[in-house]
Amino acid sequence: MYRTLTLIIVLAALGSFRSTAAQDRSSFDGFKFVDASGNIRKPTDYRDMYYMLGSWTVLDPKGNQMHFTYASQGAAEYYRRNKKFADGTVLVKEINGTDHAQMTTGDSNWATNTNAWFVMIKDAKGRYPNSPLWGDGWGWALFKSDAPDKQVATDYKKDCLGCHQPAKADDWIYVKGYPVLHSK
Amino acid sequence: MYRTLTLIIVLAALGSFRSTAAQDRSSFDGFKFVDASGNIRKPTDYRDMYYMLGSWTVLDPKGNQMHFTYASQGAAEYYRRNKKFADGTVLVKEINGTDHAQMTTGDSNWATNTNAWFVMIKDAKGRYPNSPLWGDGWGWALFKSDAPDKQVATDYKKDCLGCHQPAKADDWIYVKGYPVLHSK
Repeated sequence: MYRTLTLIIVLAALGSFRSTAAQDRSSFDGFKFVDASGNIRKPTDYRDMYYMLGSWTVLDPKGNQMHFTYASQGAAEYYRRNKKFADGTVLVKEINGTDHAQMTTGDSNWATNTNAWFVMIKDAKGRYPNSPLWGDGWGWALFKSDAPDKQVATDYKKDCLGCHQPAKADDWIYVKGYPVLHSK
Repeated sequence: MYRTLTLIIVLAALGSFRSTAAQDRSSFDGFKFVDASGNIRKPTDYRDMYYMLGSWTVLDPKGNQMHFTYASQGAAEYYRRNKKFADGTVLVKEINGTDHAQMTTGDSNWATNTNAWFVMIKDAKGRYPNSPLWGDGWGWALFKSDAPDKQVATDYKKDCLGCHQPAKADDWIYVKGYPVLHSK
């Protein structure tokens, strides 16, 4: 009787820890950032917990930008294996200011303050047909530095698709700029 | 007797899984890439397992470069807390070629093929006083794309310090280009 009980505890403990370990690598639990109406929160700790997809440097006479794109755990591995993003994948793209200096390598540019964040959550099931922030296989969100936790996009077709249109054939993501999606 | 044995198994199982979970976040086990003589191997899977510190875009008429810097698990959290890198921290810096295109945001540059990798391992204890690849608190290594697994630096003072000299006061690392070291 006691042995049976202890065995159950062992199995429960193993199960719980296995589940935690698996989540660390590929949980695809992006919907934990979404409420029942489809409102999207910005993930906290993504700089410590998500993995780098790539970086964009936009040269613009009005001010250069550097974009850092992060993906939730396991996203790149899944993409390499399946040639698509897993349902529940979260992408966070920081829009950063830049500074630069002449270094031994040349005119070197790096990221400084973050001005905005784009968040996308892969939705392969069309979960929020009535939300103007969900469609074309993704949830779409925008946060700005004056209120970093306030989602300010109102309609992804107006606010987001304009820039993403050229990447439509790649599920709206500029995968060519993300080396880890092609090779680890 | 059986109950005691089972209890031992429970505790062992919990201990083992706890240890795995902790390693996922902050193992600082960089010395697993080093042999007894101080020879450094390039970590595999760092694109999937390490976290982004930052990115550098070097504008050079002879060809732009984009550098991606990755750090081993927990490195940034430790640095923010202690204002220094943990013993055993691994840094990997990819030197990538670039491509660019006019996009809605401007002239946008992204990383393509990797031409070289710099690897540094934090050594707070001066473990390899006789190796010319260890000193000033770090192990220093260089790998090039024609033989990606062959370490080709011969003397860090000649091969590495020249470019790192301006960052000497920050333990030889250009921390200003790594936002996550300052704020998560």
